[in-house]
Amino acid sequence: MSTPPHCTPVPLDQAYRLLNHGPTVLVSSAHGGQHNVMAAAWSCPLDFAPPKVTVVIDKATATRALVEGSGLFVLNVPARALAAQTAGVGSDSARDVPDKLARHGVQLFRVADTPVPLVQGCVAWLACTVIPEPHNQQAYDLFIGEVTAAWADARVFSAGRWHFEDAPDALRTLHYVAGGQFYAIGEPVRARG
Amino acid sequence: MSTPPHCTPVPLDQAYRLLNHGPTVLVSSAHGGQHNVMAAAWSCPLDFAPPKVTVVIDKATATRALVEGSGLFVLNVPARALAAQTAGVGSDSARDVPDKLARHGVQLFRVADTPVPLVQGCVAWLACTVIPEPHNQQAYDLFIGEVTAAWADARVFSAGRWHFEDAPDALRTLHYVAGGQFYAIGEPVRARG
Repeated sequence: MSTPPHCTPVPLDQAYRLLNHGPTVLVSSAHGGQHNVMAAAWSCPLDFAPPKVTVVIDKATATRALVEGSGLFVLNVPARALAAQTAGVGSDSARDVPDKLARHGVQLFRVADTPVPLVQGCVAWLACTVIPEPHNQQAYDLFIGEVTAAWADARVFSAGRWHFEDAPDALRTLHYVAGGQFYAIGEPVRARG
Repeated sequence: MSTPPHCTPVPLDQAYRLLNHGPTVLVSSAHGGQHNVMAAAWSCPLDFAPPKVTVVIDKATATRALVEGSGLFVLNVPARALAAQTAGVGSDSARDVPDKLARHGVQLFRVADTPVPLVQGCVAWLACTVIPEPHNQQAYDLFIGEVTAAWADARVFSAGRWHFEDAPDALRTLHYVAGGQFYAIGEPVRARG
């Protein structure tokens, strides 16, 4: 599939802002002719420049071997319209449900120079290269990635800022609680001028 | 100050849910007769049981020495009513503004068996003990903590779930973007029954 029309490059020094407000992400990965997508509530910025992120990828996931094999992953930030898909790929494992992406309606697209596919319908994407930290990976399932490219849906992120209030509610980011329940991100709150 | 009336213990196996939806936190710390509070957008659950968290604490912060000295910190989850306070303690350092807590109206309280003070007006609190990981701390400013006790405001978190929709908007969690701008958490989204 081709790049979605609103998918726009984000300068790397603004990439942390795509995750700063704590959205749940979809982790996409590819290695050896296989690809997969899993959901992760536990992902976070780690540094500004070069931008780095953390994400927890359990040893029981099919994603784990793909990320360790390729040294690459993409963090896709799903919007409210993808709530069912996000819960679905988060609860089913490709180990047990080989066709889980098709079953949950996950549609992928590719961008140049990024070997890992991106998820359609998301509102931000961060392509990451694993910074190998074997102790963190083994002891805590914690992966550190350097962000090498980023994009966002210009309808809700532009000029370095989210502006969910200017767009349909379907484009609001998802924030996972438990048991298939999320909150959508809400109203802007300005603390000072 | 005494414990706020709605502050209720949360079972440790539910503690991750207090951070699962990605709120910005206030990190409180104490050591050698000093205490401090800083804001951190970069904090995340790391494990379920025993519950663990990550938080990024820059070397330039006054908090850093207190956390390294005591091996303890508390993650306080501020609500919308504390937006100005959160932005204030996030932008001022106690190194430059020794009275920053008073200046921004930060009010603290103590609970038994927790040497670090907690921040009034927050809606969740996680008392943590640092799991020493010198490489992560030095290379990435990344601290891992084990959660030893947790509490939440029962008006918005009970029976293991957030229920912001049942309470005043002032109790919604804050999710930082940049430049003094936050989003409040919004509407519940249920992906499946």
